[in-house]
Amino acid sequence: MIHPCSPGSIFMLPHGTRIVRKLQDFLRDEYTRYGYEEVMTPIIYKKDLWETSGHWQNYKEDMFMVHSGRESAEEADEDDSFYGLKPMNCPGHCLIFDSTPKSYRDLPIRLADFSPLHRNEASGALSGLTRVRRFHQDDAHIFCSENQISSEIASCLSFVDRVYSAFKFPHYELTLSTRPEENYIGSVDEWNHAEDSLKEALNGSGRPWSVKEGDGAFYGPKIDIMVKDSSGRSHQTATIQLDFQLPQRFGLKYVDENDQARSPVIVHRAILGSIERMMAILIEHTGGKWPFWLSPRQGVVIPVATQFADYAEQVAKELSHGNINNSDLTVITKDQYYVDVDRSPRDRLNKMIRQAQLERYNFIFVVGQKEVDAGTVNVRTRSGKILGSMPIDQVRSMFAELTQKLE
Amino acid sequence: MIHPCSPGSIFMLPHGTRIVRKLQDFLRDEYTRYGYEEVMTPIIYKKDLWETSGHWQNYKEDMFMVHSGRESAEEADEDDSFYGLKPMNCPGHCLIFDSTPKSYRDLPIRLADFSPLHRNEASGALSGLTRVRRFHQDDAHIFCSENQISSEIASCLSFVDRVYSAFKFPHYELTLSTRPEENYIGSVDEWNHAEDSLKEALNGSGRPWSVKEGDGAFYGPKIDIMVKDSSGRSHQTATIQLDFQLPQRFGLKYVDENDQARSPVIVHRAILGSIERMMAILIEHTGGKWPFWLSPRQGVVIPVATQFADYAEQVAKELSHGNINNSDLTVITKDQYYVDVDRSPRDRLNKMIRQAQLERYNFIFVVGQKEVDAGTVNVRTRSGKILGSMPIDQVRSMFAELTQKLE
Repeated sequence: MIHPCSPGSIFMLPHGTRIVRKLQDFLRDEYTRYGYEEVMTPIIYKKDLWETSGHWQNYKEDMFMVHSGRESAEEADEDDSFYGLKPMNCPGHCLIFDSTPKSYRDLPIRLADFSPLHRNEASGALSGLTRVRRFHQDDAHIFCSENQISSEIASCLSFVDRVYSAFKFPHYELTLSTRPEENYIGSVDEWNHAEDSLKEALNGSGRPWSVKEGDGAFYGPKIDIMVKDSSGRSHQTATIQLDFQLPQRFGLKYVDENDQARSPVIVHRAILGSIERMMAILIEHTGGKWPFWLSPRQGVVIPVATQFADYAEQVAKELSHGNINNSDLTVITKDQYYVDVDRSPRDRLNKMIRQAQLERYNFIFVVGQKEVDAGTVNVRTRSGKILGSMPIDQVRSMFAELTQKLE
Repeated sequence: MIHPCSPGSIFMLPHGTRIVRKLQDFLRDEYTRYGYEEVMTPIIYKKDLWETSGHWQNYKEDMFMVHSGRESAEEADEDDSFYGLKPMNCPGHCLIFDSTPKSYRDLPIRLADFSPLHRNEASGALSGLTRVRRFHQDDAHIFCSENQISSEIASCLSFVDRVYSAFKFPHYELTLSTRPEENYIGSVDEWNHAEDSLKEALNGSGRPWSVKEGDGAFYGPKIDIMVKDSSGRSHQTATIQLDFQLPQRFGLKYVDENDQARSPVIVHRAILGSIERMMAILIEHTGGKWPFWLSPRQGVVIPVATQFADYAEQVAKELSHGNINNSDLTVITKDQYYVDVDRSPRDRLNKMIRQAQLERYNFIFVVGQKEVDAGTVNVRTRSGKILGSMPIDQVRSMFAELTQKLE
């Protein structure tokens, strides 16, 4: 939902929130596998921080500014200075890195953050879920030494491949953007070394990649990942950027093997990119037919007549989260699924099934006297395939398997 | 971590984030049980919205204001009006309620939201985790009819009792705040009905409760829940507030059984209250000895000598998330736990165990030749109890049981 009270900020309704949560939880599982730690960082920071990071000088027009609502200077705190609403997480993560002394043994440090970000896009540029003012990234910053760049980038590319395979995006494209002709920081040697590391990782990925000569950011080379949607339009989603500059601006240091203070390198990387934009691409890509594991409507129980409504409610609860006992003080440790009951006025069965298919429920469970007697459900898929009679436990096992296989 | 760049906004480092996630996931499970739907709402809203809600007139000094970073009026969009950074979620939830026509059959609607909130507390008032400027609530708003008030409040009190039993807060206190002498909205009859509904629910809770006469908000009566920390200080945590006013200010309507348009009642309620403040209370309450289910340090594996370091790493991985195969494209469906490896230089065993206890690890797993040969770990608890040799699977079963029982 979008509302003129907050242009470009998406209201995620219950089903949208289910999809966001599933995407975030999927990423969190992968963070365990790839050794990331999640943090939560502030949303407003004083002007000084944005001056240190360079955003104030270079990015101010695309930021929202924040100040106290107290009218007069007397009422206002001395603390009521100007803040910027964060457009990126990197400065906050630099403060965390800098909060304790670091040694080479601590590296790499991989900090992940799902904080909301705000960028003041012109109102004419706003568009659905793809161009917004408030969005969430599966953002992370890797603080590493120069000789870790190559393996960290390889790990990022492997991460991209896992996630995009799960989304069935087989044809994503990789591009390397290299040192600009002028207006870059760092030495040519550093750039060459960094570009070589990226090329090595790209070659190791086993995928084709292309080069955009001179198209790197002024602070370092980067790899962009593009995905084509079902209409053939390309969207930039994932990004992996090397940054030599920010560690210097923040004076970040670690002590190397020879007791020398050295600057870490920062890798900015996002796999989904903007979660909102990725949702838009997935909606296009699936035509609203979400795969079971991501679906906000995984099943619906249709009682063939009103006298089976109670059985339908009971079955929907068991399919959703197994038997839960409200009086016990235990958590719902069982896997949870989204299974509704069709409570609309009864109609011809075929019409009700058709309606459920139009509503994109992955599975449709019909229940009547036979199912009540046997304690089963009659199962068919969104595409109309009839799987027949199944006990509840068997359906839940099927759900678990589909979820585990990301299908 | 706190930093002068953003006074009153807490940086949650990795272990703090683990605790916040566990608290939120626990609440989400309970939302399934109690019939809430989670939504995600914008963080900035234009001045108009805050005028409709009454915050602009009554709460402006405690809010942060937001505006475009574009300097001049020409550069600025017409859209670049003043925004307020949200101090509460209710106005956003009213917009969602109002986005589609509602009937009595849709009620109650229970919208939950974990959005970050900002309140411009004076800098002198800021204090640790208990008095902050940016915080997260386990916030929800229930939109219901008048005759649903009593059962909804009873359900909220049951929810409070489940959660506070899980936290082992047996002595929380309930107070009812009633109609103020003057400056209230709505009729005396409505107030009497609402207060009777709250009293009925309080009596049904089976717990003692007291009355604060005339202490209700101008928009409705409320129930506050107070918790004593280990030093005997009382903290207000949960709150359940009836609100007749906001539905009228927003012109919210539903169609009742007789086709009449009626205003819903809003119940504002939070069970943990501020998650940051609840963390402070739990830290005090547990003395940093987190129960297993909430602990960011659930276990540590100590190799008795460096030649057992590899086995320690392998065991820690298996204890953390079972065997995961990086090449399969499957999710980690197994339960996950936080188990570290002690990689510090080897010392006397007793000293290393003592150190792990001081670091508040719930379980300490010692491994040497005997454990390598048998494929086991030697288990002891934080308090020094020796549980002896256990296979990995048995430890994971114990972990699962403790988690399910919230111990």
